[in-house]
Amino acid sequence: VKFQRQDSQPQWGVASGQTISPITQSFASHRDLMAVYFADPQHLKTDSNTLEMRDLKLLSPVSDDVQIFCQGLNYASHKEEGGLTGEKGQNLIFSKPASTICGPNDDIVRPNGCELLDYEVELALILKQDLPANSHVDKTNLLDYVGGLTLTNDVSARDFMFGAPMMQWFKGKGQRTFCPTGPILYLLDDSDLELLSNLQLTLSVNGEIKQNATTDQMIFKPEETLTELASFADIKTGDMLLTGTPGGVTLNANFKVGLAILLNFTKDNKRRQKLIKTQESVRYLEPGDQLTLSLKSRDGSLDLGKQINGIRDAA
Amino acid sequence: VKFQRQDSQPQWGVASGQTISPITQSFASHRDLMAVYFADPQHLKTDSNTLEMRDLKLLSPVSDDVQIFCQGLNYASHKEEGGLTGEKGQNLIFSKPASTICGPNDDIVRPNGCELLDYEVELALILKQDLPANSHVDKTNLLDYVGGLTLTNDVSARDFMFGAPMMQWFKGKGQRTFCPTGPILYLLDDSDLELLSNLQLTLSVNGEIKQNATTDQMIFKPEETLTELASFADIKTGDMLLTGTPGGVTLNANFKVGLAILLNFTKDNKRRQKLIKTQESVRYLEPGDQLTLSLKSRDGSLDLGKQINGIRDAA
Repeated sequence: VKFQRQDSQPQWGVASGQTISPITQSFASHRDLMAVYFADPQHLKTDSNTLEMRDLKLLSPVSDDVQIFCQGLNYASHKEEGGLTGEKGQNLIFSKPASTICGPNDDIVRPNGCELLDYEVELALILKQDLPANSHVDKTNLLDYVGGLTLTNDVSARDFMFGAPMMQWFKGKGQRTFCPTGPILYLLDDSDLELLSNLQLTLSVNGEIKQNATTDQMIFKPEETLTELASFADIKTGDMLLTGTPGGVTLNANFKVGLAILLNFTKDNKRRQKLIKTQESVRYLEPGDQLTLSLKSRDGSLDLGKQINGIRDAA
Repeated sequence: VKFQRQDSQPQWGVASGQTISPITQSFASHRDLMAVYFADPQHLKTDSNTLEMRDLKLLSPVSDDVQIFCQGLNYASHKEEGGLTGEKGQNLIFSKPASTICGPNDDIVRPNGCELLDYEVELALILKQDLPANSHVDKTNLLDYVGGLTLTNDVSARDFMFGAPMMQWFKGKGQRTFCPTGPILYLLDDSDLELLSNLQLTLSVNGEIKQNATTDQMIFKPEETLTELASFADIKTGDMLLTGTPGGVTLNANFKVGLAILLNFTKDNKRRQKLIKTQESVRYLEPGDQLTLSLKSRDGSLDLGKQINGIRDAA
């Protein structure tokens, strides 16, 4: 974990339950920390004093100079609630700018003009080395490239996404604070291959569970997605892949939504207004709401951290 | 310009006509070069020997670790050929991964499975300092942030763009070699404000002019776009903004294209096949074709370089 005591410099630490053992070395980014750890885990030196996590400000363990690749519609339960069934089709890949990253307990800011603010709990994979062009990734070499896991929220302004020209998602997914990340960057070892498909994601709004799924439900598995990414783009040490969200988001993609989109395909403002109208009976995130996200191993033996975020309006 | 002699290390130089005066300092990236230049242009030291440009391999002057922000539909002539008229609407913003960047004379690689490979000549702006969050950019401070100009080609696989799930453009715009950049990184000085709207872009395929427009035709001006970007994302020193392409691309967006897209909105493979069918009579880029792109001041007094690219198939 990366954390801060009052106004001091950010530090790194090893989390254990509700306490943190500070790491004595300092690292400019998670890349540098991973390089040292994967050379030899013994090289990370911890202080004997432990700190209480609740006394600290937890920061994103992933620094904000990475590429963020994202998958859409990668769980059947989410694809179905979007009105899409049938063919496996293609892997939906898009990106978020690095400035979406914020701390795991930071407020999520609803941008001016946004009416349909939604959440998406996701497992993120962090690369520990550059993925060479045209690499074939399978289960035998997946952990040569994926060095870490963390919890993320692919926050989405639905009205911006579907009201944008040609319905490009960049503005709807790319706003500051739209990628709370962490708190724990879990560093994988060789025995963790099975763990990737045995993680449980949950998300609650004001205490009510909305999303709850296991990562074995992914349609495109991490090795398939990394193989595809390597075929067309360079994904580098420290970069992050968000692997998609399960069902349970707020967006109510009924028949009327499809019509609102298709009948107004070239009229952005009208499409946006019609979409908002179809969602009148649905309660989107509002200032004062609280999100709680968690990532655990399925059997509960491994707890990979929790996010608690308030929602507030932009100034 | 950044260039290479045979297999030696890349170097920087100052272009003048068909010759280059090598810069004696070495710089890891255009960021470092710009930092030195903008501190004091006299700090760049050139060798008295000049080299003939034709003997050198010209490289992208923008290094491949930047964020690339792009505008779509930013010239009326291109918007109209896409079947879109009327409201000014919103600024269409999307991104390309940095690995799309290649040299100005490198081959453009048609990916496996791509049938509708298209070009888009564009003016790119390069930032010389971080744009603070929520900056208001106007003509009075535009050149505080924009330090350089260069020629780019926003190469696009139309079948990938419009056949992707939810029609997200990332795969269609994001393939390696889909952003030939350079050769000249023109560094602006205080008197260059008018130049930005007085540039002429041209693109030819096999000697036939297809695109020819001036940058005063942009719908969203650079200062508007940077103000909008600053409102939601961090755009940093060295990052690049592609400002959209004028009319004349290959895509023939007739009524049947609209139908093919809308009637098959949830069926990606079918939509892609139907789109390809609507383009049967149109000749897209093919292996062996040659593109020529240029960027000049409108009055011809300032030549900002030329790209000549072959097209080849992926291995």
